[in-house]
Amino acid sequence: MLEKMFNPESVAVIGASHVKGKVGRAVLDNLLNGYEGKIYPINPKSLEIEGLKCYKTVLEVPGPIDLAVIVIPSKLVPQAVRECGEKGIKYLVIISAGFKEVGVEGARLENEVKDIARSFNMRIVGPNCLGILNTHTKCNASFAKKMPPAGNVSIITQSGALGTAILDWSDATDVGFDCFVSLGNKSDLNEIDFMEAWKNDDNTKVILAYLEGITDGRRFIDVAREVSKTKPVIVVKSGRTSAGARAVSSHTGSLAGSDAAYDSAFMQSGVIRAETMSEFYDMAGGFCCQPVPRGDRVAIITNAGGPGIMATDACERFGLRLATLSKETVDALKTTLPPAASFYNPVDVLGDASPHLYKFALETVLKDEGVDGILVLATPQAMTDPVAIAEVIGEAKKTTDKPILPCFVGGLVMDEGVAVLKRHGIYNYDDPSRVAYTMRMMTRYQKIRQRVYVEPRRFDVDREKVRKIIDNSRNMGITVLGLEALPVLEAYGIPTLKYRIATSVNDAMQAAREIGYPIVMKIVSPDIIHKSDVGGVKVGISNDEELENAYNKMMKDVTLAAPRCRISGVLIQQMATGGKEVILGMNKDPQFGPLIMFGLGGIYVEVLKDVQFRIAPLNEKDAYGMIYGIKTHQMLEGTRGEKPSDIEKLVEFLERLSQLVTDFPDILEMDINPVKVYEKGRGCLALDVRLAISPK
Amino acid sequence: MLEKMFNPESVAVIGASHVKGKVGRAVLDNLLNGYEGKIYPINPKSLEIEGLKCYKTVLEVPGPIDLAVIVIPSKLVPQAVRECGEKGIKYLVIISAGFKEVGVEGARLENEVKDIARSFNMRIVGPNCLGILNTHTKCNASFAKKMPPAGNVSIITQSGALGTAILDWSDATDVGFDCFVSLGNKSDLNEIDFMEAWKNDDNTKVILAYLEGITDGRRFIDVAREVSKTKPVIVVKSGRTSAGARAVSSHTGSLAGSDAAYDSAFMQSGVIRAETMSEFYDMAGGFCCQPVPRGDRVAIITNAGGPGIMATDACERFGLRLATLSKETVDALKTTLPPAASFYNPVDVLGDASPHLYKFALETVLKDEGVDGILVLATPQAMTDPVAIAEVIGEAKKTTDKPILPCFVGGLVMDEGVAVLKRHGIYNYDDPSRVAYTMRMMTRYQKIRQRVYVEPRRFDVDREKVRKIIDNSRNMGITVLGLEALPVLEAYGIPTLKYRIATSVNDAMQAAREIGYPIVMKIVSPDIIHKSDVGGVKVGISNDEELENAYNKMMKDVTLAAPRCRISGVLIQQMATGGKEVILGMNKDPQFGPLIMFGLGGIYVEVLKDVQFRIAPLNEKDAYGMIYGIKTHQMLEGTRGEKPSDIEKLVEFLERLSQLVTDFPDILEMDINPVKVYEKGRGCLALDVRLAISPK
Repeated sequence: MLEKMFNPESVAVIGASHVKGKVGRAVLDNLLNGYEGKIYPINPKSLEIEGLKCYKTVLEVPGPIDLAVIVIPSKLVPQAVRECGEKGIKYLVIISAGFKEVGVEGARLENEVKDIARSFNMRIVGPNCLGILNTHTKCNASFAKKMPPAGNVSIITQSGALGTAILDWSDATDVGFDCFVSLGNKSDLNEIDFMEAWKNDDNTKVILAYLEGITDGRRFIDVAREVSKTKPVIVVKSGRTSAGARAVSSHTGSLAGSDAAYDSAFMQSGVIRAETMSEFYDMAGGFCCQPVPRGDRVAIITNAGGPGIMATDACERFGLRLATLSKETVDALKTTLPPAASFYNPVDVLGDASPHLYKFALETVLKDEGVDGILVLATPQAMTDPVAIAEVIGEAKKTTDKPILPCFVGGLVMDEGVAVLKRHGIYNYDDPSRVAYTMRMMTRYQKIRQRVYVEPRRFDVDREKVRKIIDNSRNMGITVLGLEALPVLEAYGIPTLKYRIATSVNDAMQAAREIGYPIVMKIVSPDIIHKSDVGGVKVGISNDEELENAYNKMMKDVTLAAPRCRISGVLIQQMATGGKEVILGMNKDPQFGPLIMFGLGGIYVEVLKDVQFRIAPLNEKDAYGMIYGIKTHQMLEGTRGEKPSDIEKLVEFLERLSQLVTDFPDILEMDINPVKVYEKGRGCLALDVRLAISPK
Repeated sequence: MLEKMFNPESVAVIGASHVKGKVGRAVLDNLLNGYEGKIYPINPKSLEIEGLKCYKTVLEVPGPIDLAVIVIPSKLVPQAVRECGEKGIKYLVIISAGFKEVGVEGARLENEVKDIARSFNMRIVGPNCLGILNTHTKCNASFAKKMPPAGNVSIITQSGALGTAILDWSDATDVGFDCFVSLGNKSDLNEIDFMEAWKNDDNTKVILAYLEGITDGRRFIDVAREVSKTKPVIVVKSGRTSAGARAVSSHTGSLAGSDAAYDSAFMQSGVIRAETMSEFYDMAGGFCCQPVPRGDRVAIITNAGGPGIMATDACERFGLRLATLSKETVDALKTTLPPAASFYNPVDVLGDASPHLYKFALETVLKDEGVDGILVLATPQAMTDPVAIAEVIGEAKKTTDKPILPCFVGGLVMDEGVAVLKRHGIYNYDDPSRVAYTMRMMTRYQKIRQRVYVEPRRFDVDREKVRKIIDNSRNMGITVLGLEALPVLEAYGIPTLKYRIATSVNDAMQAAREIGYPIVMKIVSPDIIHKSDVGGVKVGISNDEELENAYNKMMKDVTLAAPRCRISGVLIQQMATGGKEVILGMNKDPQFGPLIMFGLGGIYVEVLKDVQFRIAPLNEKDAYGMIYGIKTHQMLEGTRGEKPSDIEKLVEFLERLSQLVTDFPDILEMDINPVKVYEKGRGCLALDVRLAISPK
């Protein structure tokens, strides 16, 4: 798929120009610089450009054309696209700007182009982009200034400017590229299409993406999950989505913040997120040239204590394990390193270490079965020979399947060594912390690669019942449901305490006697969000008399506090005792759909905001990950002699909630708050619920 | 102070050599390369080195000598130092290794050298160091390969190797140095002495330090607090101190972890801590050439959306404010920037922006009173002229006292622009996140500079009483005190509930009646740390009968659970109701002395480890800082309609605790856990205490 796009036999440049400085000239020059297929300049005003015969339209070109690059003013684009379709061209790169990004009129034009392309079954990159290129076919269908060095990194960028910066960086560091795509307005092809296309592309070992938004959240997760099993996908996602575009009435909504959905999506699909350009570059530099470590046991070799300690600190900070060297390794090191050296991890070969000593130490440590990867640090001391040490690393790398990440710390003196590393195709890190960070992310990728995706469980539920409740509410003009939605939970196997809704004081008493005192009374109203704030909750009612008093007081208080609210009655509920309070929730993300939340109730969610999110549908592993992902999960595991909580049942609740919101896209927001979790084996109960449905 | 060390009129090189590759030759060559004072090579085996007359000893030198650099084998050093003393030399740089770092014998030799130096009133840098240098006097008394460019950064390094790396970095980036000191073993002069010396050195604008340990914690804080008012002090402190060197029996001790004391010391003294070398370099590059911003309102100018968004994200992440541009600024921008540009912050001058447009935008935004600092981003797009944009920034910088931090993102294409920035003395950042981080730290420094230090309050206390309790315990061989230490708190104005220690069941009943039921009974034993774990706590005893039963049960349970423990009796204490539980504690840090801890009790301290530390003595601001520094401070301010807690009184408790542990260095560890904090105005009460004192 998209094979011919990067490896076309012929390319037309619609809007080719002989005028230096014009984009139509830059694209042509880039193609002429190495591309061996046929190049057809298209321009009605020229007969010949740069020695190539020029055609008025693609229709005039005698042979077939695989790819057309369009660099003409936007209003001329629809016609040109139509001609491409008639000519049978399958792939278009529309560099021209003046579409969706300039407003309504441009958006209309872009839709027109899309429709034409679709009618001919053509695929489009752009419009409003820098173009695409492939270093192996030398097909540079972009106006980027230079072809980057050839390599195994393929990149998708939603910012042309950052694209040029990354190409420029690639040139400076010799991190080589396979394909480069500037997405522009993503009228047709988007990041997902290219990830999918590169999944089985042997030339691409690492996929990088700079994204500002994702086109189809669901498909992104499905595709990225597959792709990240075969090669690392590293993404910078910038731009926090503006929260508050829609009024948020749930806890879950207000906690979801701007980036929770993206973070969840990346986590669930195995995409590695970089926060900064430095992290992005560092990971690209590591993954492109180093094997993925088998585990997280790291050895450090250094010619000085200081950077060794810094690397050790950083390993600890990032959660890597410092390898314990075997007795054999230590003994072997002792035979050759000077007595003042350190034979344990970090191995300090000392400031005057010869390249030979570095070689010996590196080879010895590489052999240790307890070492999964090595950081080789070098500082420019009096006797240091950076070039020779770089050679040592380059040679050692050929003999091993463990990553050896170099960290030559310094400036000009180390540059020659860094150049030798480059010649060996090895990326250098100049900061002990950054090299440790990269190793950390490589070990994380090893775990991602090993993941086995399990389909979400499907429970036997009463879907019809929920359908009816939602439809009925909607018919009554009610879009926010409170306690009256408890049956929705029950229909999906999320039990609650015994309860009954009563519409009079006598009815309430009857209900209380059926359920058995003590009971809790809660106001039922579609208009009241925080029941306790208006006096709408009374706990611990233990007899008829107390109930009557409480009922009358509640009616008075609620009417006083919320005069215009509709009161559907009161809920009489069994008293809950013991257990821990947690909150389950769901918020609909515009890109990714239902986003499930989990946290401990009360202060933990309100002050600490200690919650976890995952995109539905959840499988069992996702649900466990949410529970063990909160900082306070020990609270559920049992601290200070307490018995552990029923985490298994909580996991099932999360899965059932996931099924519910997946089955009913009409549910926009949901809080189940609190859910009481009892001791292991004793289950959970939902005590209250609140859900918002889409209007008719 | 130390003036002559960096600006000597004459230098002797003891161990000067004509042999290339020897350190004695390297030092001499470095001095010959620009230093204009007198140079005296000292070597009994040579008559002349590099055209200079050579002397057998310093005593033979005819004129006075300000500084001697010693590069001879360690065992010869004492004699050489004695001769330096006799000659009247005041400053020694001992480069020679073979001292404390090689073991007991070396340590002995180092002490001998120290003693000799002290007897002659000489000051020493080293031994086992790289040397010192000053770029302004061109006195390079080190064996570093090259002199760094001259500038206003002075640096202290405890790792010679990182020192060489930093010098090499300086050379590559043109960040210029004033003084450089490699500390070596710190036998005499240490980081504090140099900070103090550079405080009033007009050539030093920024102080950098790479440290692995601090020599005198108390003095470090006092000096750094003064120095950081006049110039930023940026420290990388590596190497986590190994916790567990001493058995820790308190909460406070186990929470203090490895780095709490250093973090506290840096915070309290206004030292800015860098976690990584990149942060270290970035801050050096910012502070050396940019004015400190007046506030934290940042404007961003960019030629592309992508990096603009990344910088915006980073500003938000680091807690900077995006400036709201004034109407005048926006209107002015609209007059000249193209219509598709963004006139709000970030200001996007678009990809084809000329240097002229950059200049216009920069000058316009600089004028805005609501902008404290500017980040200027540039990416290498087709029309981008990095050199001219760099010139624009260089020129603008001359006209303003606001920092303008450039971020040229890319590689080779941007290098020429970066070179022009360097020529203007401006450091470039190649990552939007790193430039935002640096601006953040510059705004933090602005706050540090404005700090006013207030002396700790002294309360009127009963010191004598505490002295007696401690002495008595110690005489009885008791070094860990529990409830029997409540009088210690009372003596320092930290009240507790009514209580009495009873030694029999009848005595206990008598006490309970005096105090008034309900009461709490707790076992009193110097051998029991966790009373409730052995059945040593019973709450809610409401009459004599319950008391008798509880007493008998407690004696049985405790004796069963801890058969060999000494029981001093039981404590009968008034029941505490209401209030919030907090924990106050103290742990003695080997470098910095008493480290005070504060946190909310129970789960918050045990699972969340949400605590704050400060080094005693605390002033009021420190104490407030601790309380508002915990993540859950809202719990004390009143959430969900609760009344706020008595934070004022809690502050006073912290200050009183600080006074106690400062007055009594014999107290090694202390937990006051729990302290009950009541509503504002209603004070606090210590319910339990545990303290460890040093043995006789």
